[in-house]
Amino acid sequence: MVKIKSQRLQSRLMEMARFGGLSSGGVKRLTLTEEDKGARNLLRKWMNDLGLEVHVDEIGNMFGILSGKNKDRFIGTGSHLDSVPTGGKYDGPLGVLAALEVAETIVEHKIQLNHSLVVANYTNEEGVRFFPDMMGSLAHVNPNKISEYLSAKDEKGITVKEAAADIGYNGKMKCGAIRYNAFVELHIEQGPILEQKGIDIGVVKGVQAILWIKLTIEGKSGHAGTTPIAARKDTFYAFSRLSNYARQLCSEIPGQLITIGSIELSPNAINVIPEKVIATLDIRNPSDEHLADAIQKVHEFIAKDDSFQNLKVSEEVLVDVPAVRFDQRVTSSISRSCQSLGYSEMDMFSGAGHDAQILATRYPAAMVFIPSKDGISHAVDEYSSPELIEKGANVLLQAILHLDQD
Amino acid sequence: MVKIKSQRLQSRLMEMARFGGLSSGGVKRLTLTEEDKGARNLLRKWMNDLGLEVHVDEIGNMFGILSGKNKDRFIGTGSHLDSVPTGGKYDGPLGVLAALEVAETIVEHKIQLNHSLVVANYTNEEGVRFFPDMMGSLAHVNPNKISEYLSAKDEKGITVKEAAADIGYNGKMKCGAIRYNAFVELHIEQGPILEQKGIDIGVVKGVQAILWIKLTIEGKSGHAGTTPIAARKDTFYAFSRLSNYARQLCSEIPGQLITIGSIELSPNAINVIPEKVIATLDIRNPSDEHLADAIQKVHEFIAKDDSFQNLKVSEEVLVDVPAVRFDQRVTSSISRSCQSLGYSEMDMFSGAGHDAQILATRYPAAMVFIPSKDGISHAVDEYSSPELIEKGANVLLQAILHLDQD
Repeated sequence: MVKIKSQRLQSRLMEMARFGGLSSGGVKRLTLTEEDKGARNLLRKWMNDLGLEVHVDEIGNMFGILSGKNKDRFIGTGSHLDSVPTGGKYDGPLGVLAALEVAETIVEHKIQLNHSLVVANYTNEEGVRFFPDMMGSLAHVNPNKISEYLSAKDEKGITVKEAAADIGYNGKMKCGAIRYNAFVELHIEQGPILEQKGIDIGVVKGVQAILWIKLTIEGKSGHAGTTPIAARKDTFYAFSRLSNYARQLCSEIPGQLITIGSIELSPNAINVIPEKVIATLDIRNPSDEHLADAIQKVHEFIAKDDSFQNLKVSEEVLVDVPAVRFDQRVTSSISRSCQSLGYSEMDMFSGAGHDAQILATRYPAAMVFIPSKDGISHAVDEYSSPELIEKGANVLLQAILHLDQD
Repeated sequence: MVKIKSQRLQSRLMEMARFGGLSSGGVKRLTLTEEDKGARNLLRKWMNDLGLEVHVDEIGNMFGILSGKNKDRFIGTGSHLDSVPTGGKYDGPLGVLAALEVAETIVEHKIQLNHSLVVANYTNEEGVRFFPDMMGSLAHVNPNKISEYLSAKDEKGITVKEAAADIGYNGKMKCGAIRYNAFVELHIEQGPILEQKGIDIGVVKGVQAILWIKLTIEGKSGHAGTTPIAARKDTFYAFSRLSNYARQLCSEIPGQLITIGSIELSPNAINVIPEKVIATLDIRNPSDEHLADAIQKVHEFIAKDDSFQNLKVSEEVLVDVPAVRFDQRVTSSISRSCQSLGYSEMDMFSGAGHDAQILATRYPAAMVFIPSKDGISHAVDEYSSPELIEKGANVLLQAILHLDQD
């Protein structure tokens, strides 16, 4: 059976991790930055060396195409090269470089595919620098919204359009020009389940719903030493109560996760009661119904808790992605590959958002997970062993060969 | 009886408020900034016009001296011109400009004082740009620590010494050169008590203890969508529980105030569990014993609460000022003035830190309070009526004339 070359994939993963590499061993490579430019240029070189036809679309999504007998039927695979501020080497790059490794293996073995194979790198999957996250794949499935995405600004006021142009990745191809007959994304689990169960491969059946809310709470500033507690309109105290309640909901509602990852106080001075809090809630659940329940309870808390009386609260929904079910034909091609390779597998849902989840709203798609050491990701010590990465890439290869036969 | 001129004092308060004036009507005049420079230059001009001998010390404290029969015996009065980021027109400038008004009244009436009268403006009372607060008066009473204060840095890495030089207020006079026989500071109450009781003047018998603690809480970053709650080392969740507990302590311990005014998360990204929280606690109590009790309970909470298990907590004490009792001779001179002027008065403790509290550690000192509308300060709508300001300035004048006779 045809196999990928583990050593080549490993060395490329390590070489890619040098762009935005942190002394801690992690990676900080925010989308469309100089670090991202370096990573993209290296990917393009590797694509060119392999003879792939490289295209870049309006929002900077990169596509390396290996033509098949039928040039207009596409099977896609890939992920993203951008990272969070304290990210690791694997979240994203694994899917992109494994896709490249699959293409190289097919070229080396002179396998003539029926479909054209697309190796994809999607822009701004993490959504740290620009809202929303998974922006590149969103633009792929919603080309009519491209101007909205291109005008999104980072905290310095730089737009996506400007940032893409600054690093030379404002491409000519129209977003959505490539229509996939199937898309498969290899990714680390980013959770502890596979490792705890000692299983090689996760066959991802779907992705949990994700909601990002930005809360702005306005009260009144006042002197920390002279304003009686009863007279305070203390925005941070109210928000800290909400933070406690959010954690409580995580134990009350099945599958519920709520994370408070960012907050900003005004005026943010030691001896001044904060007149304003701007903070975010990251709310996830495999069930759309349970997610809706969580939101309702959060709103009820804000409406009823004493700490929020006399405060003004406004809410902005930054991201609202419903739960996704992946394509049965694509997931079964993954299962068949695991069986033919003799790897242990289990069905699971993804806890994180992924490009494949967005592409799945328009094209048949699914994902392959490999275990994450200690379930850690979005952290500098994110790790998956070369052996597990090799298994994941071989499953990806076989799944694509199966899909190519359909 | 000699009286100050209310109209002149009011117009000077309004003119001074233009430096760093906000559209909201408030003032943002951080210490040793361009805005502070403008305010200082105007004060120096007024001092010169009045014929005061102006000195600036190493840390930028300004002194306008009206010589008396005994040149070497000093009675001081004054406050500070710096403000918090969302400050008002009165916290500080009232004490400085009322001091100037008192000097001008004495000059106009050709009153020959036994003591030299010192009109003082102290540097960095608010402590927002540089730690610690009340730095100028601290340097006045601890000249041996001057190099430590001068090397304090703001968030841009600029030192006090550099900032003072940048605006031309790095003076030649040695800190502590002026030794007061008495010091009186007029200030707004910054609390609701006088207004609620309908009393004109607060005779301040002392100042509550103030402790500023900077907490650094270190955990582990992780993916918001895939890290099970039980596996999280969530620094913000732990801190939000501490915030709730701190508020609870304010109702359990007599006179206790705890304020959380500033916080910083790392990496501060929506979908990443924060690996680090740096936040401050402003803890105040009129009783040193009660304050110590509050600190101990905070430490016990951090040691015992489940949310802090597996987190690393380090603590830095930024400010630690014990409760202060003011000088009996000075406070009685204030009471006698109220009685002779026919103003209602009450004894009270200050909830805020003040330069007079620092000077009191070395020289006989006390303070005069006037009511603050709605008890508001450190806010743009801080306000005290011209009538109350006039009363406060007249009490200050009479108190100084009494002290001059001692």
